Amino acid sequence: MPYVNIKVTGGAEAPTAKQKEELIEGVTHLLQKVLNKNPETTVVIIDEVDMDNWGIRGKTVTSRRSMK
Amino acid sequence: MPYVNIKVTGGAEAPTAKQKEELIEGVTHLLQKVLNKNPETTVVIIDEVDMDNWGIRGKTVTSRRSMK
Amino acid sequence: MPYVNIKVTGGAEAPTAKQKEELIEGVTHLLQKVLNKNPETTVVIIDEVDMDNWGIRGKTVTSRRSMK
Amino acid sequence: MPYVNIKVTGGAEAPTAKQKEELIEGVTHLLQKVLNKNPETTVVIIDEVDMDNWGIRGKTVTSRRSMK
Amino acid sequence: MPYVNIKVTGGAEAPTAKQKEELIEGVTHLLQKVLNKNPETTVVIIDEVDMDNWGIRGKTVTSRRSMK
Amino acid sequence: MPYVNIKVTGGAEAPTAKQKEELIEGVTHLLQKVLNKNPETTVVIIDEVDMDNWGIRGKTVTSRRSMK
Repeated sequence: MPYVNIKVTGGAEAPTAKQKEELIEGVTHLLQKVLNKNPETTVVIIDEVDMDNWGIRGKTVTSRRSMK
Repeated sequence: MPYVNIKVTGGAEAPTAKQKEELIEGVTHLLQKVLNKNPETTVVIIDEVDMDNWGIRGKTVTSRRSMK
Repeated sequence: MPYVNIKVTGGAEAPTAKQKEELIEGVTHLLQKVLNKNPETTVVIIDEVDMDNWGIRGKTVTSRRSMK
Repeated sequence: MPYVNIKVTGGAEAPTAKQKEELIEGVTHLLQKVLNKNPETTVVIIDEVDMDNWGIRGKTVTSRRSMK
Repeated sequence: MPYVNIKVTGGAEAPTAKQKEELIEGVTHLLQKVLNKNPETTVVIIDEVDMDNWGIRGKTVTSRRSMK
Repeated sequence: MPYVNIKVTGGAEAPTAKQKEELIEGVTHLLQKVLNKNPETTVVIIDEVDMDNWGIRGKTVTSRRSMK
């Protein structure tokens, strides 16, 4: 019955449909292995966050990427 | 003063504007009825989640829908 | 398959176990009525937030309550 | 190491890229000033919420704006 | 730079400190393997939710467990 | 009308009541200054997360602190 929310950068860095499947399958399996949680009721939601909307070290990811 | 977040599948399954109004009105009323919360300050946010980004039973909703 | 998160003030204002049941039953029913969502897979999580940790109008609820 | 999530209305009311930078810089600085948190690991995520999907006082923001 | 939130039932069903370590290590590794995300900046937050506060199928987990 | 959620480590590192007031006042003011948001309806919720439940770089904060 666990609920998992995964936030990653979207846009040019967005995961593909196949990668999303792998994340969902992997985290569901992890919860079963570690806590014996039933995969039937494990919910996973992936949020793709625009690089303008994600900040780290006081800057947006957009700004940080452009500095490199 | 409650805060409510409702996540449902979006895209082809997204609620209409009218349905969103009904959800917001309904949950605001529920909190008033059950807990006597003031509707003036009840905040509701609806997130529409892409079917590729929502996992249940280790699969995305997209995969599950296509299996049927 | 919806996911709902309800945040209300806790401590002295926390809902009783019976009120939590009513909130969960009510919002699950609302999603079935408005969007035809299956109650079998509707998940609701209630967070009780300490009045020191909830701010509105730039003040904590604790401060606001003590002003009255 | 704090994590901050800021939700504001999007669409016509969405913040500009520059305003997002100011929010991220400002909140990161606030956490450093008040709690001495390291800006290196402060994460900020801004969500822009559609006005149809944000409810207050039992109505969507779209409805409320159109009443004025 | 991903952010992951895992919600599981707490109280009598709460994960041990060692199980929390395994969840955090496992999901961090998964994001590195699938999306090549840097473990240095992957943040994971585990919420333990009281069984009175978690609803599924219109009932609290407390009610459901007591029916069995 | 913005909604802000701030997550910081709790327990021995938890902010004091006064620091929480400063965070709430500061972020409410920031949203007014940058986006002209009305402080009357700005909601801020602070979550204090146990150091066993917060992971970074694949380890809990508890583990990381004990290594130093």
